[in-house]
Amino acid sequence: MTSKTTPHITTGPLPASTKVYSPGELYPHLRVPMRRIALHPTSDEAPVTVYDSSGPYTDPAFEARIESGLPRLREAWVEARGDTEEYAGRPVRPEDNGHAGEAALSPEFPVRHKPRRAMQGRAVTQLAYARAGIITPEMEFVAIRENLGRQAAGKDRAGDGQSFGAAIPDYVTPEFVREEIARGRAVIPANINHPEAEPMIIGRNFLVKVNANIGNSAVTSAMAEEVDKMVWATRWGADTVMDLSTGRNIHNIREWIIRNSPVPIGTVPIYQALEKVGGIAEELSWEVFRDTLIEQAEQGVDYFTIHAGLRLHHIPLTVNRVTGIVSRGGSIMAKWCLHHHRESFLYEHFDEICDIMRAYDVTFSLGDGLRPGSVADANDAAQFAELETLGELTRIAWQKDCQVIIEGPGHVPMHKIQENMDKQLSLCGEAPFYTLGPLTTDIAPGYDHITSGIGAAMIAWYGTAMLCYVTPKEHLGLPDRNDVKTGVITYKIAAHAADLAKGHPAARIRDDALSRARFEFRWEDQFNLSLDPETARAFHDQTLPKEAHKVAHFCSMCGPKFCSMRISHDIRVAAQQEGMEAMAQKYREGGNLYIPVAQG
Amino acid sequence: MTSKTTPHITTGPLPASTKVYSPGELYPHLRVPMRRIALHPTSDEAPVTVYDSSGPYTDPAFEARIESGLPRLREAWVEARGDTEEYAGRPVRPEDNGHAGEAALSPEFPVRHKPRRAMQGRAVTQLAYARAGIITPEMEFVAIRENLGRQAAGKDRAGDGQSFGAAIPDYVTPEFVREEIARGRAVIPANINHPEAEPMIIGRNFLVKVNANIGNSAVTSAMAEEVDKMVWATRWGADTVMDLSTGRNIHNIREWIIRNSPVPIGTVPIYQALEKVGGIAEELSWEVFRDTLIEQAEQGVDYFTIHAGLRLHHIPLTVNRVTGIVSRGGSIMAKWCLHHHRESFLYEHFDEICDIMRAYDVTFSLGDGLRPGSVADANDAAQFAELETLGELTRIAWQKDCQVIIEGPGHVPMHKIQENMDKQLSLCGEAPFYTLGPLTTDIAPGYDHITSGIGAAMIAWYGTAMLCYVTPKEHLGLPDRNDVKTGVITYKIAAHAADLAKGHPAARIRDDALSRARFEFRWEDQFNLSLDPETARAFHDQTLPKEAHKVAHFCSMCGPKFCSMRISHDIRVAAQQEGMEAMAQKYREGGNLYIPVAQG
Repeated sequence: MTSKTTPHITTGPLPASTKVYSPGELYPHLRVPMRRIALHPTSDEAPVTVYDSSGPYTDPAFEARIESGLPRLREAWVEARGDTEEYAGRPVRPEDNGHAGEAALSPEFPVRHKPRRAMQGRAVTQLAYARAGIITPEMEFVAIRENLGRQAAGKDRAGDGQSFGAAIPDYVTPEFVREEIARGRAVIPANINHPEAEPMIIGRNFLVKVNANIGNSAVTSAMAEEVDKMVWATRWGADTVMDLSTGRNIHNIREWIIRNSPVPIGTVPIYQALEKVGGIAEELSWEVFRDTLIEQAEQGVDYFTIHAGLRLHHIPLTVNRVTGIVSRGGSIMAKWCLHHHRESFLYEHFDEICDIMRAYDVTFSLGDGLRPGSVADANDAAQFAELETLGELTRIAWQKDCQVIIEGPGHVPMHKIQENMDKQLSLCGEAPFYTLGPLTTDIAPGYDHITSGIGAAMIAWYGTAMLCYVTPKEHLGLPDRNDVKTGVITYKIAAHAADLAKGHPAARIRDDALSRARFEFRWEDQFNLSLDPETARAFHDQTLPKEAHKVAHFCSMCGPKFCSMRISHDIRVAAQQEGMEAMAQKYREGGNLYIPVAQG
Repeated sequence: MTSKTTPHITTGPLPASTKVYSPGELYPHLRVPMRRIALHPTSDEAPVTVYDSSGPYTDPAFEARIESGLPRLREAWVEARGDTEEYAGRPVRPEDNGHAGEAALSPEFPVRHKPRRAMQGRAVTQLAYARAGIITPEMEFVAIRENLGRQAAGKDRAGDGQSFGAAIPDYVTPEFVREEIARGRAVIPANINHPEAEPMIIGRNFLVKVNANIGNSAVTSAMAEEVDKMVWATRWGADTVMDLSTGRNIHNIREWIIRNSPVPIGTVPIYQALEKVGGIAEELSWEVFRDTLIEQAEQGVDYFTIHAGLRLHHIPLTVNRVTGIVSRGGSIMAKWCLHHHRESFLYEHFDEICDIMRAYDVTFSLGDGLRPGSVADANDAAQFAELETLGELTRIAWQKDCQVIIEGPGHVPMHKIQENMDKQLSLCGEAPFYTLGPLTTDIAPGYDHITSGIGAAMIAWYGTAMLCYVTPKEHLGLPDRNDVKTGVITYKIAAHAADLAKGHPAARIRDDALSRARFEFRWEDQFNLSLDPETARAFHDQTLPKEAHKVAHFCSMCGPKFCSMRISHDIRVAAQQEGMEAMAQKYREGGNLYIPVAQG
């Protein structure tokens, strides 16, 4: 379904799915969204409830009007805390949109909300509240969300898994959320100026999350496309979205995205700062950067990638690398540092950056400017020197009550992945790790969602809290809508594979329901329970398009005679009729194990 | 390019690639094929030599005529050993093609070669020769092939990796190959009646290999398509191909495939045996199965999946499973065993099966009929009980001089993968492991090449010698040409990621060459060095189609101002001009590190 507003976005529920909302106990007004997938009546099974990042767009009761933006659900929560104030805010300036002339200018978002900031001296971060012992509505919201509709009994606990030291509870309570945030082991990225977003949590004792990157570039892409990609990405499961725009219209495009985003939005402010100085890295300054931080914080960006860990003395460590510096932010800062032969202004002004972050509750995503861009450069001195600095900065940010996550590589062969995780945990005090892949080989451009999906699944198993997706276009071009979907689904696979391997108590519920559907030839249930029901159904229909085949007790690979599931099912049915124990007993006694097999 | 014969197949070299052939030393007449990828003259780099499974089809000097079949390159080698004899062979019977009537019958292959078999009492397997201290031409061929054109100096050794006990040499010698085969740790699947195939080796101390499944079914697919898929699969890197046909015309289709296949062909003979008894499992018998083994051995099938490890007393262990028995062969045998309440005839006649295998050098691929079909069933008692039996059968087959590989799961969450590898190595005496995936979650039908690519990379790292691919159509339908390619490329990624992680001495050469090309904006080299040059180029061109952009020093993601590679390259160039050491030194001395950055 496509909404009638401009830009076009995809709305409406996924197949067999109903949006349900759970209330809070501490905050009964909460409406925590989940998606309930109905199963066929013959299954005699309860619906399966799954995590739902898609926001109101998949609720048929909601009429999407892009020009209005989403309802501002957290506005009242923020106001109720009484520690923030509205103010006029920074006016939009021509350089904010790269001096786009009238013809080239994307339209302004029609509604202007006054920004809020912390009252003088107050820290309005979830970390500050958590440390003060306060359970915020955001904390209760994510606690309910993480339990996927399960009750505290925890009877669904899968019971196995290797968690590498993570401490995933059987059931997430609001108090557990508070404790994890207070320890810095989890974050809720929730700028007070992005009240449209539904709270979500990032931490290794919670479900593994996925970020999708969107954004135009100086070369290609436009506003309408980016808003559509954002909604599309969340439809398929993106938990956060980063707007990595680098062209003109950065300010206006971002406003449209944030006002319509049900998930936290991240950015890399240095990209816009660079646009403001005409693209000449040497002309960057703390003042321009500071101005950009405030501009974006007022708009409601929930987390900022800041490459403050890349220091002047790290740069010579990269000179013998196969692929030098591949992080855009990192290379911009390296150029600035070398040109001026000065320490990075991000590092030198880190205290002041913290003051801005805490006034809006923008979460730090400390960037890995020296991440390896090839397997040859993985785990080298440059990369780990920067990681050490990120640990130092984490402690400073925490002293300032700022929430922090740490960005990670990159290109890393499988045998060097775990060292990344172990070092990050120890150097950064268990602040959540947020990794790009890693890509486990360099030789497959066009398939880097896969080269990196392998590494992503592994590092998430070892403890990474959020995975930044990689699309098939990585290294080659800008992702389109199909690439965004492929990237998100691939990373949902990686995240879920990690949840299973860590022993998350609820992870296997969906696998088991889908496998039972598969075993019982409930094709519709198999499609509906899958991460991408549309593709599953389309692939099935390519070989066996007829509706009758959706209830067929075989599939196109084997045909009726050869279907192992069918034969196996016959065995099962017979065994159930006789009673499994009786059957086994008979065999042990050497009796006749003949089972009348149904023919059809 | 499409050949003019019927069926149509894709021939001709890959971009920038030349087929080269290396001679042997022990056997100077050997022509061991490799693919040499030329780099742009500005790179000042030698061509990169890669493994080439595509056979003569990618050699422009070769004119493919499907009706003639490939040259029979090993025929003279086999004859020279003087231990085999030609004989009339078993006539083709109507039931071999499922009693297909004239209208429905696929044409017979036009050329009939008389089959060969071992002379009375002789074992003509590579294992028998290896144990007798004989280095066969096949052994020297694979030794040369595994070195990828490197010289014995081993100067390219990457130097890191975690091999989990594998013992990969710096340089593969024919004697090393012989030793590994003699120990049962590697196999060369090479039926004496498939002399068209180029020898290849499967073992954990060699490059990880990939198998692609093709085959028609009772419901869909035809001969021409299957031959095309076979050639297509090897073009993208499939090291072996399994023909899993189950419909009519099995015999004739297989003949076309084998006569035209440059790689070893595997089958699951029980599928055809079942067709011969009208699809009724209970009517199977040792006689029908034996007849099928001989039929297929005479045709030249290089390895047989035989589910002899599934014993009657294992079946009750599967009754409480979520997905019962999902192996087709396994479920057929389970049905037979239960119906007759008898031990499997495969198990009872295993000695006689060995006698057939050794007379043609068909390699055993001992099937895992009880592999788990869902993460819930992974590593359960049924699966490991069967694995134990496979170990017992391995020892019997080895006593009979038969080559053996062991098939493995299936659906296994990440934390349970390594146990599969460890148990297989210890129970089966290090016979090569050959796994399907494993799929690390059940929830993504339509993307099971990815759910399984994750598990495949990991289990290959732990020690699996060959990976059976999974395509996007898994669980949903029969793979078409595009699915075959996607499956093969995904599995080449998994195999290569594992080679890198194991520390294979030659693995990183291609990654590093591609990464240097990427860093130096040699777009054409980047495409040509990739696993799928066509897709890499097409994706690039979607965003920046102009030819000029192929030499642009930026890409579409960032545009010229933001390109980290470009900036980083500027830094590098400057550093090289000054001398890297001097640059670092200057910094250490606190000198001016200003570097004149090239603008463009």
